[in-house]
Amino acid sequence: MREAAHVAVDWGTSSFRLWLIDRAGGVLAERRSDEGMTVAANSGFDAVLQSHLDAVHAVPDLPVLICGMAGARQGWVEAGYVDTPARLAAILERTVRVPGQSRDIRILPGIAQRDESAPDVMRGEETQLLGAFGVDPADDALVCMPGTHSKWVTVRRGGIARFATFMTGELFGAVAQHTILSHALAGADDAEDVAAFTAAVVAAREDPARAANLLFQVRSRQLLFGGRPEAARETISGTLIGMELAAELAAKARDVRITLIASGRLARLYGLAFGALSVPVSPIDADVSVRRGLATAADAIWAS
Amino acid sequence: MREAAHVAVDWGTSSFRLWLIDRAGGVLAERRSDEGMTVAANSGFDAVLQSHLDAVHAVPDLPVLICGMAGARQGWVEAGYVDTPARLAAILERTVRVPGQSRDIRILPGIAQRDESAPDVMRGEETQLLGAFGVDPADDALVCMPGTHSKWVTVRRGGIARFATFMTGELFGAVAQHTILSHALAGADDAEDVAAFTAAVVAAREDPARAANLLFQVRSRQLLFGGRPEAARETISGTLIGMELAAELAAKARDVRITLIASGRLARLYGLAFGALSVPVSPIDADVSVRRGLATAADAIWAS
Repeated sequence: MREAAHVAVDWGTSSFRLWLIDRAGGVLAERRSDEGMTVAANSGFDAVLQSHLDAVHAVPDLPVLICGMAGARQGWVEAGYVDTPARLAAILERTVRVPGQSRDIRILPGIAQRDESAPDVMRGEETQLLGAFGVDPADDALVCMPGTHSKWVTVRRGGIARFATFMTGELFGAVAQHTILSHALAGADDAEDVAAFTAAVVAAREDPARAANLLFQVRSRQLLFGGRPEAARETISGTLIGMELAAELAAKARDVRITLIASGRLARLYGLAFGALSVPVSPIDADVSVRRGLATAADAIWAS
Repeated sequence: MREAAHVAVDWGTSSFRLWLIDRAGGVLAERRSDEGMTVAANSGFDAVLQSHLDAVHAVPDLPVLICGMAGARQGWVEAGYVDTPARLAAILERTVRVPGQSRDIRILPGIAQRDESAPDVMRGEETQLLGAFGVDPADDALVCMPGTHSKWVTVRRGGIARFATFMTGELFGAVAQHTILSHALAGADDAEDVAAFTAAVVAAREDPARAANLLFQVRSRQLLFGGRPEAARETISGTLIGMELAAELAAKARDVRITLIASGRLARLYGLAFGALSVPVSPIDADVSVRRGLATAADAIWAS
């Protein structure tokens, strides 16, 4: 049996993922749960982590590397920020060790953009970028990382030049659950309506300022013409994603190719959205990226 | 003592307002409560209305004219819609009488835009327009009617040519209460921050597609630079209002003047927003408009 070299943890706001990694970077075991920062802040970060370490039979001296919201001020131990423009290598030099633990447990810092006219923060995505581009990116790239808080990152040789967060996913949840549009979504099943989604993306890209009107049309359309709740849901989603894409595509340099780092449903939706706008993208899996980023960091920290 | 001629009621989603009106259109008594459609749908429209009629000592045969959401499908009695392009005079011809009442109680219809590419509905604002422009508007106008669901109405000689609803007010509530930005607003008092508001309006007008990023900056700014919760609130409000204005100002014909029909806090906020963008507006009070519109309609229905 291969021996474990370290434990990698991606600890987000609402999700917890842990991998037991061998010396060659292979995955020996995996754990996923919804014990994200919000849950762990109540039940205790220490207890949550230990329960998963026990489940994968991690030996007592196996080191643990964590990225994500566990390093936020409201997280386990605040891991601070590396400021933009940020070399990706700087992330590895600025880990914070969790005090009072016999085991070596470290949290990676986030990235801050201390620009008064465009302040921004990320925690976790920097580790995906490390996995996708390596410690010293050779080329320029514009990276789209969809999520509750989507990140658009300008990568330049060596690191992160600038980035912008769009609260697209969270807006979708707030609009779908806490406005009059919730009635239009009642009873929706998992069936996708690709036509409704791509039409909404195109409409929002064409006139993004009209987003709050395009959203209300979901309600009006159902009152006047009827229609399926799945189409209503995809129209809301497409409107918000189309608005996000409109902002970044308008600012994009002509010759820069977009890298889409995403997994699962978000990868599919954003892939459809870029396709509807005839914008080519290079897709990279987000799950693979964060695991590879944690492995790269662990190697740099413990293998030396 | 002057004798009452009719009772006028503006019955919205979340508010109820009633006026006892004399033959000259003067207000003899007024009632305001939060027994809007949502509340009245549970407690009974009949009972809510009667309690207020009793409070102003309305005689049993005094007729009542109602506008607003009481005429919606989920309201008291569905009053249907007049379709665009809609003569304002058509509203008066399409009232629905509430059945089973000894008193003559009528509800004004709403307006529907049965355009598959821009479906829209209004209930209540048509009565404000009637009050502001009369039964037969002589001039063209672009009308901004701020609210939970802001309406932008193109008035042409005789009536309503087109309109668009922006769910700006409802988005503000959903974002302020049901996203991560709620933390940034915690503890905010009533103090206004005009500078934060107008700066946000200007930023959203300049790049409306970036709204979901401008909103997240509220969070980032507080994490990185601190700042007062009142400024955070005004930035959210200014971003959403600026996005709405960006959509309609971009589509506006150069020589059309904007009429702003609003009252209270919304009148002040939208006035500030238009001022920040150097766009002249003609303000009209919304409360006065709806009362005048109901009086005009009552005259046409019962005085003949």
